[in-house]
Amino acid sequence: MMKLLISNDDGVHAPGIAMLHRVLKETAQCRVIAPDRNCSGASNSLTLHNPLRLQQLENGFYSLNGTPTDCVHLGTNSPLADDVDLVVSGINDGPNMGDDVLYSGTVAAAMEGRFMGFPAIAVSMGSHSHDYYETAARVVADIVNGMAEVPLRLDTILNINVPARPYDELKGIKVTRLGRRHRAETMVRDRDPFGREIFWYGPIGGQLDDAEGTDFHAVREGYVSITPLSLDMTAQSHQDTLQAWLGTTQK
Amino acid sequence: MMKLLISNDDGVHAPGIAMLHRVLKETAQCRVIAPDRNCSGASNSLTLHNPLRLQQLENGFYSLNGTPTDCVHLGTNSPLADDVDLVVSGINDGPNMGDDVLYSGTVAAAMEGRFMGFPAIAVSMGSHSHDYYETAARVVADIVNGMAEVPLRLDTILNINVPARPYDELKGIKVTRLGRRHRAETMVRDRDPFGREIFWYGPIGGQLDDAEGTDFHAVREGYVSITPLSLDMTAQSHQDTLQAWLGTTQK
Amino acid sequence: MMKLLISNDDGVHAPGIAMLHRVLKETAQCRVIAPDRNCSGASNSLTLHNPLRLQQLENGFYSLNGTPTDCVHLGTNSPLADDVDLVVSGINDGPNMGDDVLYSGTVAAAMEGRFMGFPAIAVSMGSHSHDYYETAARVVADIVNGMAEVPLRLDTILNINVPARPYDELKGIKVTRLGRRHRAETMVRDRDPFGREIFWYGPIGGQLDDAEGTDFHAVREGYVSITPLSLDMTAQSHQDTLQAWLGTTQK
Amino acid sequence: MMKLLISNDDGVHAPGIAMLHRVLKETAQCRVIAPDRNCSGASNSLTLHNPLRLQQLENGFYSLNGTPTDCVHLGTNSPLADDVDLVVSGINDGPNMGDDVLYSGTVAAAMEGRFMGFPAIAVSMGSHSHDYYETAARVVADIVNGMAEVPLRLDTILNINVPARPYDELKGIKVTRLGRRHRAETMVRDRDPFGREIFWYGPIGGQLDDAEGTDFHAVREGYVSITPLSLDMTAQSHQDTLQAWLGTTQK
Repeated sequence: MMKLLISNDDGVHAPGIAMLHRVLKETAQCRVIAPDRNCSGASNSLTLHNPLRLQQLENGFYSLNGTPTDCVHLGTNSPLADDVDLVVSGINDGPNMGDDVLYSGTVAAAMEGRFMGFPAIAVSMGSHSHDYYETAARVVADIVNGMAEVPLRLDTILNINVPARPYDELKGIKVTRLGRRHRAETMVRDRDPFGREIFWYGPIGGQLDDAEGTDFHAVREGYVSITPLSLDMTAQSHQDTLQAWLGTTQK
Repeated sequence: MMKLLISNDDGVHAPGIAMLHRVLKETAQCRVIAPDRNCSGASNSLTLHNPLRLQQLENGFYSLNGTPTDCVHLGTNSPLADDVDLVVSGINDGPNMGDDVLYSGTVAAAMEGRFMGFPAIAVSMGSHSHDYYETAARVVADIVNGMAEVPLRLDTILNINVPARPYDELKGIKVTRLGRRHRAETMVRDRDPFGREIFWYGPIGGQLDDAEGTDFHAVREGYVSITPLSLDMTAQSHQDTLQAWLGTTQK
Repeated sequence: MMKLLISNDDGVHAPGIAMLHRVLKETAQCRVIAPDRNCSGASNSLTLHNPLRLQQLENGFYSLNGTPTDCVHLGTNSPLADDVDLVVSGINDGPNMGDDVLYSGTVAAAMEGRFMGFPAIAVSMGSHSHDYYETAARVVADIVNGMAEVPLRLDTILNINVPARPYDELKGIKVTRLGRRHRAETMVRDRDPFGREIFWYGPIGGQLDDAEGTDFHAVREGYVSITPLSLDMTAQSHQDTLQAWLGTTQK
Repeated sequence: MMKLLISNDDGVHAPGIAMLHRVLKETAQCRVIAPDRNCSGASNSLTLHNPLRLQQLENGFYSLNGTPTDCVHLGTNSPLADDVDLVVSGINDGPNMGDDVLYSGTVAAAMEGRFMGFPAIAVSMGSHSHDYYETAARVVADIVNGMAEVPLRLDTILNINVPARPYDELKGIKVTRLGRRHRAETMVRDRDPFGREIFWYGPIGGQLDDAEGTDFHAVREGYVSITPLSLDMTAQSHQDTLQAWLGTTQK
C-alpha cells in the first residue's frame, strides 16, 4: 500500500482535503498535515521567524500553524517524518492554472515534496464549484493507482486541474503547458470602518494565452489537465542574449 | 533619468536597501516600498485575507504591512502606482543561489515586477557579510546605467549575486545557471520556555551542484553571478514521458 | 432553558471547551464561538486592523480568526448575535488567579460578555492538570442551574478557579479576593536556530499574597474559588492623595 | 535626571511618541521601546507563542515585534532592562477614557510598568486631532518635573487625557473617575473583494455617563483629566451579595 502525505493551502478544515482523504484512504495509507488557517496565496513561503506548533485534531488530521510548505517539510524532513511514497496537495478550491501556479500554496506543497525527494501531485478544481470534489479525488486515486503499478520517474511535479463535472463525464486527460493570464485588475483602494486607507488585491486577470495545448484550454473542453512543472527556473534560452548585452554595456 | 521601484524582503529598515537607495539615487529616480517586517522566506506569497496599509517613514521610504510581492504589486498596479522603468529588489542579506530562489522574497519581488510588465533585477550578497553592500549597489548601478544606454529585452528577471569584496576586486561578471543544494538538515524539535513542543527549520543544505557554470561557482571564484530566471515553469522536456506513462496506466 | 454563549482563550480545539460544552448542553442551549488558535495571554485585545472570518466546524462549534473578546463581541453584538442569557468562558488550561486575570483571555471573554450586558463567568483549572475538566464543568453547571432558579444581579463577572480533584472531593465554594503574584522571572534571552537574538517571557512569578481570603488560598485548600471582578478600574481611594500632590507640584 | 522608559500602542513610527520623546528628553533621560506595528486595541496582551525580536532604528528608538506590554516588560524585566524611574506611554492618537481603558494598549503599557514596580503614566489626546501633541507632551513634562521634586507614592497608574488645544488655553487639571460608554454599535458584516464574508467592529459607543467628575466631562470642559487606575480588580462591594446568593442556590 502506498504511503501518502496529504496537505493543502485552504487549511485543515477545508472540504477539499476532507474529500481527498476520504477517497485516497481506500487505496493508500494517508497522513494529513495541513495549515490551521486558509493559506491561499502562500506560494512557497516558509515560517522562519516563529516556531511551528503541531496539533492533532479529533479526526486524526494534523493542524500546523504554518504554511503548506512548512507542512510538507515537517512531514518529510523532521523528527516526525514518516515513510512517504508520494505527496498529494489539494483539492484546491478553484483553479491553479497559468500564472496562478507561482502564487499557489497548493502547488508549493507539492514542490516541497519534490524538493525533499518524493513524487508529488497538486490537484485543484478547474472552477470555483464545490460540487465535484469527488471527481477530482477519483482522478487522483487513478493516478496513484497507476503509480503503484508503473513508477513515474520524473524530476517534476504534476499540476492537475479537474473540470467541475461528474467523473463519468470527463473527456479524458491532456498533458498541457501553462497558459498565461492578463495581469490582475488594479488594486482596490478602500477605507476600513474606522476611516483608514487600506488596499486589497483586485480581481484576478482573464486568460491571455488559453490556446490549444494550455491547461486553460483542456479544462474548458472537459479534460483533466496535467502540467509537469519544473523546479529549475534557469532561463537557459536567454543566457546568450544576456551575455551579448553585458559585452556591450559593462566595461 | 530612469524611474526605479525598489523593494526587498529583509524589511524597510534593513541596511541593504538603504545602501541600494543611496547609490541608485545618484543615477535614477527612486521610490522605495518595502515590507515593515523581515520577510525572508516569503517567496511569492500574497496578502489576500487582510487589507494592506501603507505608511511613509521619515526618510521617505514607504513601509507596507505585507510581503515583497505585495510591495511591488502596490507600486505597479494600484491607484498609487507610478511610472516605473525597472524594479530592483535587494540588497539581500545573504545569497539567493541555487534552490534558494524558490523561497526568496527578494527574487519574488523582482518576479512580480516582471509579471507586471517591467524589467526586474534581484540582487543579493553572495555571503552573509555586511561589509560590502556598497559593492553590490555599484554593480546594480552599472547594470541600470547599461540599461539606460541599451535596453535589455528579455522576458525574464536577472538574479544577481555579488561576492563580498571591494568593488575593485571583482573579477568580472558571469552569466550562470542555478546550482543545486542538498536538502536542508532535519527540522529542529525543541521546547519553548513553557515546555511546549515547537519545531524550527534546520540549517540550509550544502551545495550539491556547484560546478562551473553555476551561480555558486561564479561567486566563489570572485565573479558577479547573473542568472536569468524564467517565469514559465512548464517542464516541456517531460511532457512526452508523462504522456507515455498516462497511455500505459490510465484506462 | 438558558441560552449560553461559550468561548475560551485556549482555542476552539482545546479539551477544556469541549468538556464544558459536553456538560452544559445537558442543562442549557449552547453556542460555541472560540478562537481558531491558542490565545493565551490575549487579555482584552481586539482585532481592529484585520477583518474577522467565521467558520463552522464539523462538531458545530464556530471558529474565529480572532481573540476571545472578538468571539464574544461577535456572538452578542453583530448581525450573527443570538439571544444570550449568560456568557461562559473556559475551561482554561491552568489557573487565572491573582495578577493573572489582567492578561487572561479567558477572563477577558467574560468581561466582554458583561460589557455587552450579560451575566458572565470565567472558569479555569486551579492547576495545569488535564484530568479534572469534568469537575470544573460540573461546578459551572451548578452555578448555571442556580442562576436559572434565582437570578444573580451583579454588575461584575465571576472568576472561578477549580481545584484539580474529583467533584466529590471538593470542599465547597469560597468567595475570594484576588491574591498577588511576584513579578515574572526575567525574560529569557536566546538565539533562534539561525543565530538571531530572541526573547521569551520568563516563568510566571510565585505567590506574593496568598493569605486566607485569596483565590490562591481557597484553591490550595480544596475549595472552588469565586472572585467577583469589577470592570471599573477607577482607584477612588487614591483620588485625594493625587489631588493633594497636584496642588503641591503643578503651577 | 529621571530615567524614563517610553512606549505606546500606535507603534514606533507614530507622531505622538516622537513628540513625547522630543519634549521629555529636555528634562529626563529617555529610552524608547515601542511596537513595530500599530497595536491599538492590544490591551494587556502578551506575546507568549512567538519569540520577540528587537531592532534599533536610525533615530535611536527600539522597535519590537510585540505588544505594548511586551515592550515595557522587555525594558524593565529582561537582560536588556535598564534603570527606570518612570514609565510613560503615549501620546495616544485619540482618547482613552471611560470603558476604553480596558482595551487600550497605551494604558496597558503603563499598567505593565506599575506591575514591574515603577510609577507609570498613560497619556492620550482627548480627541483625534493631530495638532496638539505638543500640549500633551508638555503636560507630561510638568508631571515628570513634579515627580522629580516631590515623589508621588501611589500603587496606581495615572491615566491622562489632554484636550486638543494650545497649552496656554488649558483650564487646569482635574482628578477624575472613569466615565462610561454605551456599547459599540453592531459589528459591520461585509464582503472582502473576493466575495467572502468578513466582520469589522462597529463605531465606538457614545458617552453614557459623562457627568461632572468623569474624564469625559473634564476634557470636554477644557481640563486635563487624570484618573488614577487600580490594578486590583476584585469587586469587594459585591462579595457579600455573591456569598448570599451562593448560600441560597448551591447545595
